[in-house]
Amino acid sequence: MRGVVMHAPGDVRVEQRDDPKIVEPTDAVIRMSASCVCGSDLWPYRGTDGLPAPTPMGHEYAGIVEEVGADVRTIRPGQFVIGSFFASDNTCEICRAGYQSACVHRQPVRGAQAQYQRVPLADGTLVATPEVPDADLVPDYLAASDVLGTGWFGATAAQAGPGKTVAVVGDGAVGLLAVLAARQLGAERIIAMSRHEPRQKLALEFGATDIVTERGEEGVARIKELTNGLGAHSVIEAVGTQQSMAQALGSTRPGGHVGYVGVSHDVALDGRALFYSHVHLHGGPAPVRQYLPQLIKLIGDRTIEPGKVFDLEVPLEQAAEGYKAMDERRAIKTLLRV
Amino acid sequence: MRGVVMHAPGDVRVEQRDDPKIVEPTDAVIRMSASCVCGSDLWPYRGTDGLPAPTPMGHEYAGIVEEVGADVRTIRPGQFVIGSFFASDNTCEICRAGYQSACVHRQPVRGAQAQYQRVPLADGTLVATPEVPDADLVPDYLAASDVLGTGWFGATAAQAGPGKTVAVVGDGAVGLLAVLAARQLGAERIIAMSRHEPRQKLALEFGATDIVTERGEEGVARIKELTNGLGAHSVIEAVGTQQSMAQALGSTRPGGHVGYVGVSHDVALDGRALFYSHVHLHGGPAPVRQYLPQLIKLIGDRTIEPGKVFDLEVPLEQAAEGYKAMDERRAIKTLLRV
Repeated sequence: MRGVVMHAPGDVRVEQRDDPKIVEPTDAVIRMSASCVCGSDLWPYRGTDGLPAPTPMGHEYAGIVEEVGADVRTIRPGQFVIGSFFASDNTCEICRAGYQSACVHRQPVRGAQAQYQRVPLADGTLVATPEVPDADLVPDYLAASDVLGTGWFGATAAQAGPGKTVAVVGDGAVGLLAVLAARQLGAERIIAMSRHEPRQKLALEFGATDIVTERGEEGVARIKELTNGLGAHSVIEAVGTQQSMAQALGSTRPGGHVGYVGVSHDVALDGRALFYSHVHLHGGPAPVRQYLPQLIKLIGDRTIEPGKVFDLEVPLEQAAEGYKAMDERRAIKTLLRV
Repeated sequence: MRGVVMHAPGDVRVEQRDDPKIVEPTDAVIRMSASCVCGSDLWPYRGTDGLPAPTPMGHEYAGIVEEVGADVRTIRPGQFVIGSFFASDNTCEICRAGYQSACVHRQPVRGAQAQYQRVPLADGTLVATPEVPDADLVPDYLAASDVLGTGWFGATAAQAGPGKTVAVVGDGAVGLLAVLAARQLGAERIIAMSRHEPRQKLALEFGATDIVTERGEEGVARIKELTNGLGAHSVIEAVGTQQSMAQALGSTRPGGHVGYVGVSHDVALDGRALFYSHVHLHGGPAPVRQYLPQLIKLIGDRTIEPGKVFDLEVPLEQAAEGYKAMDERRAIKTLLRV
């Protein structure tokens, strides 16, 4: 099959890779309906994360089940399924508490920018749609695999909800979908922090009530200005840098909640400042599996259209261009046609 | 009046100080029924915190109202009252959300190791008992002013409750009272981390079900051993050092809660480790005011006896010996008779 391999920062190639096979009896193999590039793929692309060897890329997937292992009970060939970047058994104590991305048997799923994908722990990991969806819904379901589920976790961790003022730091796909999630969760006011016109537009479409273009300390001051000097109740950090985390913490009122879902890069938190800030801090790799049934329902009845974050679509063979467009911020998120 | 003044690390003196007076019309002046030394008073005593000038010490207080300012409405002379280390209006948006220690009008209360104390924002800060209590209850009420309220906040921030396994890092008065709080909040299992026999004994009396004597990584390993390899649901950090915070974070399962109430000293948190730990982190200076009505009731009907943390009692004039005994860990907490 064909699949994306990153050889070095900036060097993304589409190559012949081995077709995935059932390895464990709990595996499934799915034929991808579409694939995509994640903001976190840009960390190694930009050389921020090390890349010790050529690496098959991609961890977002949705598609048709081709084959299942002998012990798979609930997932069947022919179903359209969605999974997340960590396979999980969905039965352990941690999964049952809603933290499937920390499942005691979790396994990373990697290499999904390809035609096929092996998924371990298929029964625990994959969620099938009621029927094979119309083609126009595929980008929405694919978004649920990571960026929507991650934005949803950020909004949940930040306790976005009725009566709350929510601020979102980061205008990538995750930040924009955190806006959508906050709206669905009933937040009263949603402030998107963005200085990019197309992203501001999408944020407003997803339910933002205010746009703040300032960053850093000026951004914090602006959020305070909009919240009676107190800060937002709920702040979602969707970048993962020291600056964005400082902006998120500074924008939160005492007793408020920060939900952080940007993969932390060189972030160090000062214990004393955190202590006196009185914020609640929660985040990490999103337990997307927890939210999939709910998200599938919202997408299926066309209540939400998270696939709008895909503002560039290229064939899998042109994945390099898809990466480049995101790196240069010409695209929010690239869908790869397989 | 007589009051404790710290002149330098290790140099605590009892001196003649000016009698406090009503300064603002919202003030009250109270005659202390007893005073005490806090674990946090040991930071400057040991030279960890700087001490730029001779400083009146003490921030825990309970006593009889002597006088109130012209604008005080609910607090009356003759009442027995308890307050906290931050005066608060108890009406602002932050107070109403339960974070009185971050009140927009908060003022620190200092100098309470003395015969009298001025308390600003008396109506918002002070809570009166239904009647002047029997003398034997005074230490219990005095404990509510800080260490009990702080332990209670730690347990609440860690979401201690039914079905939960709770671990407590720190066997000072706050850690021990966090054990008591976790018991009152209905926790199923409470693991006290202590290697000091008298403190272990008090922890068991307050409701601990297990004692762990190991510290650091060995302590973490022991907590995991006791929790099916997962870590505790709720961990209370009641020390404030890098080591104790690492021990608390390491002892918490993914999706679990750390409530940290030890005043942070040189604590730095690695963002990436925190991200992948999946814990909830919440803490800060405890909003004791929020809990006072409930704590007063539990003390008044003799459900709890938090005053047991006072295992040394000396006259105010011998405050220096009270500090020394705590510094040398001969005493858990010193009560000063005034």
